[in-house]
Amino acid sequence: MTPLPTARTPEQRRLDTLRRLEDDVDAWVATADPRSGEPYMVPLSFLWDGATLLIATAAASATARNLLAVGLVRLGIGLTRDVILVEGTAEPLRAAEVPQDVGDAFAAKTGFDPRELSSPYLYFRVRPRRIQAWREVNELKDRDLMSDGSWHVTADR
Amino acid sequence: MTPLPTARTPEQRRLDTLRRLEDDVDAWVATADPRSGEPYMVPLSFLWDGATLLIATAAASATARNLLAVGLVRLGIGLTRDVILVEGTAEPLRAAEVPQDVGDAFAAKTGFDPRELSSPYLYFRVRPRRIQAWREVNELKDRDLMSDGSWHVTADR
Repeated sequence: MTPLPTARTPEQRRLDTLRRLEDDVDAWVATADPRSGEPYMVPLSFLWDGATLLIATAAASATARNLLAVGLVRLGIGLTRDVILVEGTAEPLRAAEVPQDVGDAFAAKTGFDPRELSSPYLYFRVRPRRIQAWREVNELKDRDLMSDGSWHVTADR
Repeated sequence: MTPLPTARTPEQRRLDTLRRLEDDVDAWVATADPRSGEPYMVPLSFLWDGATLLIATAAASATARNLLAVGLVRLGIGLTRDVILVEGTAEPLRAAEVPQDVGDAFAAKTGFDPRELSSPYLYFRVRPRRIQAWREVNELKDRDLMSDGSWHVTADR
Protein backbone atom coordinates (compact mmCIF):
# COMPACT_ATOMS: atom_id res chain seq x y z
CA MET A 1 0.00 0.00 0.00
CA THR A 2 1.08 3.56 -0.72
CA PRO A 3 1.91 5.32 2.54
CA LEU A 4 -0.50 8.07 3.47
CA PRO A 5 0.66 11.61 2.74
CA THR A 6 1.54 13.59 5.87
CA ALA A 7 -1.50 15.09 7.57
CA ARG A 8 -1.91 18.77 6.69
CA THR A 9 -1.65 21.44 9.36
CA PRO A 10 -4.92 23.13 10.39
CA GLU A 11 -3.68 26.32 8.68
CA GLN A 12 -3.11 24.47 5.40
CA ARG A 13 -6.48 22.78 5.68
CA ARG A 14 -8.20 26.11 6.13
CA LEU A 15 -6.42 27.49 3.04
CA ASP A 16 -7.29 24.39 1.01
CA THR A 17 -10.88 24.53 2.25
CA LEU A 18 -11.31 28.19 1.33
CA ARG A 19 -9.87 27.51 -2.13
CA ARG A 20 -12.27 24.60 -2.61
CA LEU A 21 -15.25 26.66 -1.47
CA GLU A 22 -14.20 29.27 -4.00
CA ASP A 23 -13.50 26.93 -6.93
CA ASP A 24 -15.79 23.91 -6.56
CA VAL A 25 -19.17 24.24 -8.24
CA ASP A 26 -21.28 21.43 -6.77
CA ALA A 27 -22.07 20.10 -3.32
CA TRP A 28 -24.10 17.17 -2.04
CA VAL A 29 -26.89 18.87 -0.09
CA ALA A 30 -28.55 16.82 2.66
CA THR A 31 -31.80 17.85 4.31
CA ALA A 32 -34.49 16.05 6.28
CA ASP A 33 -38.27 15.87 6.28
CA PRO A 34 -39.15 16.56 9.93
CA ARG A 35 -42.52 14.78 9.68
CA SER A 36 -41.32 11.45 8.28
CA GLY A 37 -37.67 11.53 9.34
CA GLU A 38 -36.85 10.86 5.70
CA PRO A 39 -33.44 12.06 4.52
CA TYR A 40 -33.11 13.85 1.21
CA MET A 41 -29.92 14.56 -0.70
CA VAL A 42 -29.17 15.96 -4.15
CA PRO A 43 -26.20 17.66 -5.78
CA LEU A 44 -26.64 21.41 -6.17
CA SER A 45 -24.36 24.19 -7.39
CA PHE A 46 -23.24 26.85 -4.92
CA LEU A 47 -21.59 30.25 -4.75
CA TRP A 48 -19.26 31.04 -1.81
CA ASP A 49 -18.92 34.70 -0.79
CA GLY A 50 -16.23 34.28 1.87
CA ALA A 51 -18.73 33.64 4.66
CA THR A 52 -21.83 31.94 3.28
CA LEU A 53 -22.86 29.56 0.49
CA LEU A 54 -25.69 30.46 -1.84
CA ILE A 55 -27.69 27.59 -3.36
CA ALA A 56 -30.90 27.57 -5.41
CA THR A 57 -33.52 24.93 -6.00
CA ALA A 58 -37.05 24.65 -7.35
CA ALA A 59 -39.51 26.00 -4.78
CA ALA A 60 -41.49 22.76 -5.11
CA SER A 61 -38.47 20.48 -4.49
CA ALA A 62 -38.02 18.32 -1.39
CA THR A 63 -34.86 20.29 -0.56
CA ALA A 64 -36.77 23.59 -0.50
CA ARG A 65 -39.67 22.07 1.45
CA ASN A 66 -37.31 20.58 4.05
CA LEU A 67 -35.26 23.77 4.43
CA LEU A 68 -38.40 25.87 4.86
CA ALA A 69 -39.63 23.47 7.57
CA VAL A 70 -36.27 23.04 9.35
CA GLY A 71 -33.50 25.44 8.35
CA LEU A 72 -30.72 22.92 8.90
CA VAL A 73 -28.48 21.56 6.17
CA ARG A 74 -25.32 19.55 5.63
CA LEU A 75 -23.21 19.98 2.54
CA GLY A 76 -20.57 17.54 1.38
CA ILE A 77 -18.00 18.95 -1.01
CA GLY A 78 -15.38 17.08 -2.93
CA LEU A 79 -14.31 13.54 -3.34
CA THR A 80 -14.95 11.28 -0.41
CA ARG A 81 -11.18 11.03 0.22
CA ASP A 82 -10.78 14.81 0.18
CA VAL A 83 -13.76 15.95 2.10
CA ILE A 84 -15.24 19.22 3.20
CA LEU A 85 -18.30 18.87 5.38
CA VAL A 86 -20.35 21.95 6.17
CA GLU A 87 -23.11 22.03 8.76
CA GLY A 88 -25.16 25.19 8.68
CA THR A 89 -28.39 27.08 8.82
CA ALA A 90 -30.30 27.97 5.66
CA GLU A 91 -32.24 31.18 5.15
CA PRO A 92 -34.64 31.35 2.17
CA LEU A 93 -34.38 34.21 -0.31
CA ARG A 94 -36.76 34.94 -3.13
CA ALA A 95 -35.09 35.86 -6.42
CA ALA A 96 -36.13 39.49 -5.86
CA GLU A 97 -34.25 39.51 -2.54
CA VAL A 98 -30.94 38.45 -4.08
CA PRO A 99 -28.82 41.49 -4.99
CA GLN A 100 -28.32 41.84 -8.75
CA ASP A 101 -24.51 41.35 -8.59
CA VAL A 102 -24.85 38.27 -6.37
CA GLY A 103 -27.43 36.76 -8.73
CA ASP A 104 -25.11 37.50 -11.65
CA ALA A 105 -22.12 35.90 -9.86
CA PHE A 106 -24.22 32.84 -9.06
CA ALA A 107 -25.29 32.46 -12.70
CA ALA A 108 -21.73 32.98 -13.97
CA LYS A 109 -20.26 30.37 -11.63
CA THR A 110 -22.95 27.71 -11.78
CA GLY A 111 -24.08 28.10 -15.41
CA PHE A 112 -27.72 28.38 -14.43
CA ASP A 113 -29.75 31.43 -13.57
CA PRO A 114 -32.87 30.73 -11.51
CA ARG A 115 -34.04 34.31 -12.19
CA GLU A 116 -34.60 33.44 -15.85
CA LEU A 117 -36.63 30.30 -15.27
CA SER A 118 -40.39 30.31 -15.58
CA SER A 119 -40.89 27.78 -12.77
CA PRO A 120 -40.52 29.23 -9.26
CA TYR A 121 -37.10 28.85 -7.64
CA LEU A 122 -35.85 29.75 -4.17
CA TYR A 123 -32.35 30.69 -3.14
CA PHE A 124 -31.04 29.72 0.28
CA ARG A 125 -28.16 31.39 2.05
CA VAL A 126 -26.28 28.75 4.04
CA ARG A 127 -24.33 30.09 7.00
CA PRO A 128 -21.79 27.51 8.20
CA ARG A 129 -21.84 26.68 11.89
CA ARG A 130 -19.31 23.87 11.59
CA ILE A 131 -16.76 23.04 8.90
CA GLN A 132 -14.70 19.87 8.84
CA ALA A 133 -12.07 18.84 6.31
CA TRP A 134 -10.03 15.68 5.95
CA ARG A 135 -8.41 13.45 3.39
CA GLU A 136 -7.34 10.17 4.92
CA VAL A 137 -7.68 8.62 8.36
CA ASN A 138 -4.56 10.42 9.63
CA GLU A 139 -6.43 13.69 9.20
CA LEU A 140 -9.47 12.73 11.27
CA LYS A 141 -7.78 14.34 14.26
CA ASP A 142 -8.08 18.13 13.95
CA ARG A 143 -10.77 17.81 11.28
CA ASP A 144 -12.86 20.53 12.93
CA LEU A 145 -11.89 23.81 11.27
CA MET A 146 -14.92 25.78 12.45
CA SER A 147 -17.41 25.30 15.26
CA ASP A 148 -20.27 27.52 16.45
CA GLY A 149 -19.63 29.66 13.39
CA SER A 150 -15.99 30.53 14.28
CA TRP A 151 -12.85 29.37 12.50
CA HIS A 152 -10.39 27.63 14.86
CA VAL A 153 -7.43 28.71 12.78
CA THR A 154 -6.78 32.29 11.91
CA ALA A 155 -4.54 31.91 8.86
CA ASP A 156 -4.84 34.84 6.49
CA ARG A 157 -5.69 34.00 2.93
CA MET B 1 -18.18 26.06 -23.73
CA THR B 2 -17.47 22.43 -24.53
CA PRO B 3 -20.57 20.76 -25.95
CA LEU B 4 -22.12 18.17 -23.66
CA PRO B 5 -21.36 14.56 -24.52
CA THR B 6 -24.37 12.67 -25.92
CA ALA B 7 -26.73 11.40 -23.24
CA ARG B 8 -26.17 7.72 -22.47
CA THR B 9 -28.88 5.15 -23.17
CA PRO B 10 -30.64 3.70 -20.12
CA GLU B 11 -28.89 0.37 -20.82
CA GLN B 12 -25.47 2.04 -20.80
CA ARG B 13 -26.33 3.92 -17.63
CA ARG B 14 -27.29 0.72 -15.90
CA LEU B 15 -24.00 -0.90 -16.95
CA ASP B 16 -22.01 2.15 -15.83
CA THR B 17 -23.94 2.27 -12.56
CA LEU B 18 -23.33 -1.40 -11.79
CA ARG B 19 -19.62 -0.95 -12.51
CA ARG B 20 -19.46 2.07 -10.21
CA LEU B 21 -21.31 0.22 -7.45
CA GLU B 22 -18.76 -2.57 -7.83
CA ASP B 23 -15.63 -0.41 -8.02
CA ASP B 24 -16.28 2.76 -6.00
CA VAL B 25 -15.34 2.54 -2.34
CA ASP B 26 -17.04 5.51 -0.69
CA ALA B 27 -20.51 7.03 -0.69
CA TRP B 28 -22.00 10.12 0.91
CA VAL B 29 -24.56 8.67 3.33
CA ALA B 30 -27.47 10.92 4.30
CA THR B 31 -29.81 10.14 7.19
CA ALA B 32 -32.17 12.16 9.35
CA ASP B 33 -32.92 12.54 13.03
CA PRO B 34 -36.71 12.07 13.18
CA ARG B 35 -37.04 14.00 16.45
CA SER B 36 -35.24 17.19 15.44
CA GLY B 37 -35.55 16.97 11.65
CA GLU B 38 -31.79 17.44 11.54
CA PRO B 39 -30.03 16.01 8.50
CA TYR B 40 -26.81 14.07 8.92
CA MET B 41 -24.33 13.12 6.22
CA VAL B 42 -20.90 11.51 6.25
CA PRO B 43 -18.79 9.59 3.75
CA LEU B 44 -18.71 5.84 4.41
CA SER B 45 -17.20 2.90 2.56
CA PHE B 46 -19.53 0.31 1.08
CA LEU B 47 -19.57 -3.19 -0.42
CA TRP B 48 -22.01 -3.96 -3.26
CA ASP B 49 -23.14 -7.59 -3.64
CA GLY B 50 -25.19 -7.19 -6.82
CA ALA B 51 -28.38 -6.28 -4.98
CA THR B 52 -27.56 -4.49 -1.73
CA LEU B 53 -24.91 -2.20 -0.28
CA LEU B 54 -23.23 -3.03 3.02
CA ILE B 55 -22.00 -0.14 5.14
CA ALA B 56 -20.64 -0.03 8.70
CA THR B 57 -20.45 2.71 11.29
CA ALA B 58 -19.82 3.12 15.00
CA ALA B 59 -22.91 2.03 16.93
CA ALA B 60 -22.80 5.35 18.81
CA SER B 61 -22.67 7.48 15.62
CA ALA B 62 -25.50 9.75 14.47
CA THR B 63 -25.78 7.66 11.28
CA ALA B 64 -26.40 4.46 13.29
CA ARG B 65 -28.81 6.22 15.64
CA ASN B 66 -30.79 7.70 12.76
CA LEU B 67 -30.92 4.43 10.80
CA LEU B 68 -32.09 2.51 13.87
CA ALA B 69 -34.85 5.11 14.42
CA VAL B 70 -35.92 5.41 10.76
CA GLY B 71 -34.52 2.83 8.38
CA LEU B 72 -34.35 5.22 5.42
CA VAL B 73 -31.16 6.33 3.73
CA ARG B 74 -29.89 8.14 0.66
CA LEU B 75 -26.46 7.46 -0.77
CA GLY B 76 -24.65 9.71 -3.21
CA ILE B 77 -21.89 8.06 -5.18
CA GLY B 78 -19.37 9.69 -7.43
CA LEU B 79 -18.56 13.15 -8.55
CA THR B 80 -21.43 15.57 -8.62
CA ARG B 81 -21.27 15.65 -12.45
CA ASP B 82 -21.37 11.86 -12.67
CA VAL B 83 -23.91 10.97 -10.08
CA ILE B 84 -25.47 7.84 -8.73
CA LEU B 85 -28.20 8.45 -6.18
CA VAL B 86 -29.55 5.50 -4.21
CA GLU B 87 -32.64 5.70 -2.03
CA GLY B 88 -33.13 2.65 0.14
CA THR B 89 -34.03 0.95 3.34
CA ALA B 90 -31.37 0.02 5.90
CA GLU B 91 -31.44 -3.11 8.03
CA PRO B 92 -29.02 -3.27 10.98
CA LEU B 93 -26.70 -6.26 11.37
CA ARG B 94 -24.44 -6.99 14.31
CA ALA B 95 -20.94 -8.15 13.39
CA ALA B 96 -21.89 -11.69 14.43
CA GLU B 97 -24.78 -11.65 11.92
CA VAL B 98 -22.53 -10.83 8.96
CA PRO B 99 -21.39 -14.03 7.19
CA GLN B 100 -17.63 -14.56 7.46
CA ASP B 101 -16.99 -14.27 3.71
CA VAL B 102 -19.08 -11.08 3.45
CA GLY B 103 -17.19 -9.54 6.39
CA ASP B 104 -13.91 -10.54 4.73
CA ALA B 105 -14.97 -9.03 1.39
CA PHE B 106 -16.02 -5.83 3.15
CA ALA B 107 -12.64 -5.55 4.91
CA ALA B 108 -10.71 -6.31 1.71
CA LYS B 109 -12.57 -3.69 -0.31
CA THR B 110 -12.79 -0.91 2.25
CA GLY B 111 -9.51 -1.40 4.10
CA PHE B 112 -11.21 -1.42 7.46
CA ASP B 113 -12.63 -4.32 9.42
CA PRO B 114 -15.23 -3.37 12.02
CA ARG B 115 -15.01 -6.91 13.44
CA GLU B 116 -11.51 -6.16 14.71
CA LEU B 117 -12.30 -2.89 16.44
CA SER B 118 -12.75 -2.72 20.19
CA SER B 119 -15.45 -0.02 19.98
CA PRO B 120 -18.89 -1.33 18.99
CA TYR B 121 -19.78 -1.08 15.29
CA LEU B 122 -22.95 -1.88 13.41
CA TYR B 123 -23.32 -2.98 9.81
CA PHE B 124 -26.35 -1.91 7.79
CA ARG B 125 -27.61 -3.66 4.68
CA VAL B 126 -29.02 -1.05 2.31
CA ARG B 127 -31.61 -2.35 -0.13
CA PRO B 128 -32.12 0.14 -2.97
CA ARG B 129 -35.70 1.15 -3.72
CA ARG B 130 -34.75 3.77 -6.25
CA ILE B 131 -31.57 4.36 -8.24
CA GLN B 132 -30.91 7.41 -10.38
CA ALA B 133 -27.83 8.16 -12.47
CA TRP B 134 -26.91 11.20 -14.53
CA ARG B 135 -23.96 13.22 -15.69
CA GLU B 136 -25.04 16.50 -17.19
CA VAL B 137 -28.39 18.23 -17.62
CA ASN B 138 -29.11 16.34 -20.85
CA GLU B 139 -29.25 13.14 -18.80
CA LEU B 140 -31.82 14.35 -16.28
CA LYS B 141 -34.50 12.80 -18.48
CA ASP B 142 -34.47 9.03 -17.96
CA ARG B 143 -32.40 9.34 -14.78
CA ASP B 144 -34.58 6.82 -12.96
CA LEU B 145 -32.94 3.43 -13.43
CA MET B 146 -34.82 1.68 -10.63
CA SER B 147 -38.02 2.41 -8.78
CA ASP B 148 -39.88 0.41 -6.14
CA GLY B 149 -36.86 -1.89 -6.05
CA SER B 150 -37.07 -2.92 -9.73
CA TRP B 151 -34.64 -2.00 -12.50
CA HIS B 152 -36.35 -0.31 -15.46
CA VAL B 153 -33.79 -1.65 -17.88
CA THR B 154 -33.00 -5.28 -18.17
CA ALA B 155 -29.56 -5.18 -19.78
CA ASP B 156 -27.45 -8.17 -18.84
CA ARG B 157 -24.06 -7.42 -17.38
